[in-house]
Amino acid sequence: MRGALLYAPGDVRVEDRPDPTIEQPTDAIIRLAASCVCGSDLWPYRGIEPVHGPSPMGHEYVGVVEEVGGEVRDIEPGQFVVGSFFASDNTCENCRAGYQTSCLHRQPAAPGGAQAQYARIALADGTLVATPGMPSDDLVPGLLAASDVLGTGWFGAVAAEVGPGKTVAVVGDGAVGLLAVLAARQLGAERIIAMSRHEPRQQLARAHGATDIVTERGDEGVARIQELTGGLGAHSVIEAVGTQESMMQAIHSTRPGGHVGYVGVAHGVELPGEQLFFSHVHLHGGPAPVRRFLPDLIDLVCRRDIDPGKVFDLELPLEQAAEGYRAMDERRAIKTLLTP
Amino acid sequence: MRGALLYAPGDVRVEDRPDPTIEQPTDAIIRLAASCVCGSDLWPYRGIEPVHGPSPMGHEYVGVVEEVGGEVRDIEPGQFVVGSFFASDNTCENCRAGYQTSCLHRQPAAPGGAQAQYARIALADGTLVATPGMPSDDLVPGLLAASDVLGTGWFGAVAAEVGPGKTVAVVGDGAVGLLAVLAARQLGAERIIAMSRHEPRQQLARAHGATDIVTERGDEGVARIQELTGGLGAHSVIEAVGTQESMMQAIHSTRPGGHVGYVGVAHGVELPGEQLFFSHVHLHGGPAPVRRFLPDLIDLVCRRDIDPGKVFDLELPLEQAAEGYRAMDERRAIKTLLTP
Repeated sequence: MRGALLYAPGDVRVEDRPDPTIEQPTDAIIRLAASCVCGSDLWPYRGIEPVHGPSPMGHEYVGVVEEVGGEVRDIEPGQFVVGSFFASDNTCENCRAGYQTSCLHRQPAAPGGAQAQYARIALADGTLVATPGMPSDDLVPGLLAASDVLGTGWFGAVAAEVGPGKTVAVVGDGAVGLLAVLAARQLGAERIIAMSRHEPRQQLARAHGATDIVTERGDEGVARIQELTGGLGAHSVIEAVGTQESMMQAIHSTRPGGHVGYVGVAHGVELPGEQLFFSHVHLHGGPAPVRRFLPDLIDLVCRRDIDPGKVFDLELPLEQAAEGYRAMDERRAIKTLLTP
Repeated sequence: MRGALLYAPGDVRVEDRPDPTIEQPTDAIIRLAASCVCGSDLWPYRGIEPVHGPSPMGHEYVGVVEEVGGEVRDIEPGQFVVGSFFASDNTCENCRAGYQTSCLHRQPAAPGGAQAQYARIALADGTLVATPGMPSDDLVPGLLAASDVLGTGWFGAVAAEVGPGKTVAVVGDGAVGLLAVLAARQLGAERIIAMSRHEPRQQLARAHGATDIVTERGDEGVARIQELTGGLGAHSVIEAVGTQESMMQAIHSTRPGGHVGYVGVAHGVELPGEQLFFSHVHLHGGPAPVRRFLPDLIDLVCRRDIDPGKVFDLELPLEQAAEGYRAMDERRAIKTLLTP
């Protein structure tokens, strides 16, 4: 099969690779209907995370089950499935508490990479959720979004306790931030402030339900949020970047007693204890337990209640994965969908 | 009147000071029935916080109202009252959200110090809560505890989402930690693990409802909590110290999806973002909005449902305040009550 490998920062190649096979009796092999490039793939692509030799890439996936291992009970060949980036048994105490990304048997879901034609998925029964029947082609991008960025934005909104009557601010205008806006809308937020200085992203934020746009960043962004909220701060702030600046922007944009939901993978972040203490905010986040939300998100997509697939503003054949990375790195694209 | 001043680290003196007077029409003057030394008073006493010249000390107080300003409506001379360390109007948006310590008009409640015979209390109507009638003498220590350490421990337990069926761990065996144990018991926790290596404090923790004692600290303490909770961590952890070690101990003792309630005033704490991210915990805390809980806590004390006054294991006349500080600094006393 063909699959993408990251050789070094900036160096993505699509090559012939061995077809994946069942290695554990709990595995499934899927034929990918679509895959994509994640904002978090850009960390190693940019050299911010180390790259140790050629690494298979991609952890967002939808596709049709080809084969399952001997212990797989619920997932069957022929089903169209969606899964998340971490495999989970969905039966342990942490899974049952809704934290499948802290599953006691957590492991990468697609260890051989999902920017490929086929992928081996670990702990298939716990990890994969089948769609009701075979989805039409136009639903595939939305289902693929559910696999990670929608589920992550949704968790951000849930962690930030978004709900009816609340004012929500979203820090970060990548795919996760833009889908956090959509999630906030679905969860009933009254006012949704998207922080973005990029016109196409502002438009998508508005299409997803943003009521206000703030273009300022850092302390100026905080001042603007305070201004828009009568000096109090937002009830709920979703952080979808993962830098020191974005975390502090989120914390300082939240009112006392309000909630920060942070889903940007933290890179070099150190939270000053005293500032956090006196901010009086609630802080919750981490790797999104997308699996918790998948059944509902799949329903919303299949019923066409939401269209999260709009975050894919560049579609390329798998062979052109390198250009897909480049376009996202240069912020020419919000998110690249790859067709195998 | 007589009142305590901190001249420099380690140097507490009780001196003649001017009687407080009504300065704002929202003030009240109270005659103290009792006051005490707070764990947080030890930060400047130990030179960890700077001391800028002789500073009036004490922010925990109960007593009888002597006089009120022209705009005070609800509080009357003759009432026995309890208040908290920050004055709050109890009407602003933050107060109504239950975060009176982030009141938009927040200020020190007893700016002239409460380790004294009389104190001026700011924003009397919002800050003070009157007891039902004049309490008997034996209730005074419990009511004084409600003024800060009980309210703070209680907030820690609420912030940690303590509730029925939950396993709770408490980091810190000072008065706040010991009363967090009591709060956890009242809030229905199934199992309460107190972390303490001091025998008299262990005994008090058990008297307040602790079911287990862990004597280890830091990583070893975390390992012990993991061991006691089937490798998962506690559902709720209350942090009542405020150091880097205690915060990390609390975070790592909490299961994914669990809650850390932190009430130790943070000193030199820097939370590593990546560890926090992957811990999957909820974090909430800050200066306890004691005012939120005061009516209920006063009821519980007056009905003799709880006896938080037991944390005062040293009672001294105000004149001996210096010895009260010394005894706490040397951990010979958990908490010193001062009688004016």
